[in-house]
Amino acid sequence: MRTQVAIIGAGPAGLLLGQLLSASGIDNVIVEQRSGDYVLGRIRAGVLEPVTVSLLEACGAAARMHRDGLPHEGFELCTGGQRHRIDLQALTGRHVTVYGQTEVTRDLMQARADSGRSTVYEAEDVRVLDFDDGSSPRVQYRLGGELHEIACDFIAGCDGFHGVCRASIPADRLQTFERVYPFGWLGVLADVPPLSHELMYVRHERGFALCSQRSHTRSRYYVQVPSSDRVEQWSDAAFWEELKRRLPDDAAERLVTGDPIEKSIAPLRSFVAEPMRCGRLFLAGDAAHIVPPTGAKGLNLAASDVGYLWQALVDFYKGDVSGVDGYSARCLQRVWKAERFSWWMTGLLHRFPEHSPFEQRMQEAELAYLLESDAGRRVIAENYVGLPV
Amino acid sequence: MRTQVAIIGAGPAGLLLGQLLSASGIDNVIVEQRSGDYVLGRIRAGVLEPVTVSLLEACGAAARMHRDGLPHEGFELCTGGQRHRIDLQALTGRHVTVYGQTEVTRDLMQARADSGRSTVYEAEDVRVLDFDDGSSPRVQYRLGGELHEIACDFIAGCDGFHGVCRASIPADRLQTFERVYPFGWLGVLADVPPLSHELMYVRHERGFALCSQRSHTRSRYYVQVPSSDRVEQWSDAAFWEELKRRLPDDAAERLVTGDPIEKSIAPLRSFVAEPMRCGRLFLAGDAAHIVPPTGAKGLNLAASDVGYLWQALVDFYKGDVSGVDGYSARCLQRVWKAERFSWWMTGLLHRFPEHSPFEQRMQEAELAYLLESDAGRRVIAENYVGLPV
Repeated sequence: MRTQVAIIGAGPAGLLLGQLLSASGIDNVIVEQRSGDYVLGRIRAGVLEPVTVSLLEACGAAARMHRDGLPHEGFELCTGGQRHRIDLQALTGRHVTVYGQTEVTRDLMQARADSGRSTVYEAEDVRVLDFDDGSSPRVQYRLGGELHEIACDFIAGCDGFHGVCRASIPADRLQTFERVYPFGWLGVLADVPPLSHELMYVRHERGFALCSQRSHTRSRYYVQVPSSDRVEQWSDAAFWEELKRRLPDDAAERLVTGDPIEKSIAPLRSFVAEPMRCGRLFLAGDAAHIVPPTGAKGLNLAASDVGYLWQALVDFYKGDVSGVDGYSARCLQRVWKAERFSWWMTGLLHRFPEHSPFEQRMQEAELAYLLESDAGRRVIAENYVGLPV
Repeated sequence: MRTQVAIIGAGPAGLLLGQLLSASGIDNVIVEQRSGDYVLGRIRAGVLEPVTVSLLEACGAAARMHRDGLPHEGFELCTGGQRHRIDLQALTGRHVTVYGQTEVTRDLMQARADSGRSTVYEAEDVRVLDFDDGSSPRVQYRLGGELHEIACDFIAGCDGFHGVCRASIPADRLQTFERVYPFGWLGVLADVPPLSHELMYVRHERGFALCSQRSHTRSRYYVQVPSSDRVEQWSDAAFWEELKRRLPDDAAERLVTGDPIEKSIAPLRSFVAEPMRCGRLFLAGDAAHIVPPTGAKGLNLAASDVGYLWQALVDFYKGDVSGVDGYSARCLQRVWKAERFSWWMTGLLHRFPEHSPFEQRMQEAELAYLLESDAGRRVIAENYVGLPV
């Protein structure tokens, strides 16, 4: 088989890239190790920046999002039992859209199916080859025991943190940066009405909590737990009780609990690999960088990488190689800023076991200052809705 | 001797309080362990917030400052060899005044001498007594071997970090918070024209540097050095060479060097004691809190404490005790924000030996974001000119 761009990974990054390339007449094949159902079963973020929305529009996969997605013009930050609203619309003139990553993936899968483009699911033993020696890149995989090979111009590594693409780049060609946090998020997805019509981020002496939602009838709640905790230790009742203890009183009273559809603990990590390109292999999204979920930047950062890569490839096939050459630097400018925001918002809202009393006071004073200052609220808001691409 | 307010310490905080109280007809005596010349010999900061300027005006000690002080409408932040201007005037509508703390102290000493109020210098064995048991506070000291005692309504502890006032408060009545940084500032004062008409804060991979000034002919330069360094290790030539290495090229070329009038290493520390009052003893300025010098908040924070204390005492003698009762809480609101800004600006601009490569990138990304964002520059500027009292 031969194609222009072989995309590894059929998560939202790979699917979005495929649809954008297809819309621009660039042939592509997606190769995914998992099944489509497995991909859809992963519960992830649900806050889309305007940049992400516009990319979904550009590839014609935005109709259901526009119908069912919830425009959020602000969110709440709670500290010391008080609720403070960050008015995104007033502070930035923009808003975010609450729409689950699972739904984004479903829409992109449907769009791809409608377009008749090829997606290979359950590919085994995927290998990316010859991307850095001047010859033509190849992707090999096995399907039902049989070896397949795709010859291509470029490989797009959209296969996540544990994928084969970054792992296939010689270690001496990458510099990596990492911060692992001493806590995770215990998350529960439940078909209960959301606590509030907006997201609520809570700083509490017992630890961070987040009240979020996927729709008017489906809620997603989180509490910070030590990294050493296992999900089996947390009964449903214990989860709801802990969440209530961290909420402002009026919110705790209104919380509607219910049986979890999903319950899991996600570790928090910051990670960046530089550069995001090795020869004709590009990394995009989680394959190149991980952010802690505070601030909801993961999917949005993947989308903006994909947006840059799409433009770079379109330009390449028109004879302009500058976008391909500049891809990594262009992505990383935005990546580092989103990494900083995610790291900073994590630091602002979580309880750190290693913090001295002085550092705890610095955290309180920073939040108090930001919430009182117009410029401070604007700093939070403009990062939350997404810095310019 | 009897007075209404006994002030311990004749640094700028004690002198300013004395002049403000005198201007409001409240009798006061200042007791200082050192000589007047010793106090004037301490080289300290030189950036005055508008709040500090207005307090000097309120006590009639602002004439020379208005004549010789330099209004600074901005300052420079340098990183990666690039110079970026923070336009304080445009971002906040306000400016700072560059005028050495030594000159502020001199003006206040002169104003006090002119008013004929009493200042006891070189007092030995100073003690503050009976401030917390319902009886009348007393200050004892020896002068030339002879014991003296001042009976008073209140004691104002303006005697600095190492003074007797905070040390006289029972340990179980105070909570203290501290952060000691693993570096200090090697500072040189020299009669050479300043490098620039504005201050220049430099983030460099070799460490922080600051180019500041006291007048058009007197400059004050600093470089970050490890805490373990001794000033004797640094020849004048080595200091100037290190400073040049950290400056942007065009600045390094223009630097005029000269023989130091003073050269010393100051440690960097964050410290807060809570509450700032014990009975009829008030703490103000360095007696209650220390900031690292980044951001030039030390003198300004002392001045705003003194401003609150002045108002509280004026109200008290009119029969309203709310200012006295609320003094500590009112001060600490502003103190913690200035502590936060000083800690944060220190963190943003210094090289930390314990930082991981990820944390170094976070520092770079934060500075890059702030300098590109209007809201980010405003956050720096509004803290630098001083948050509202």
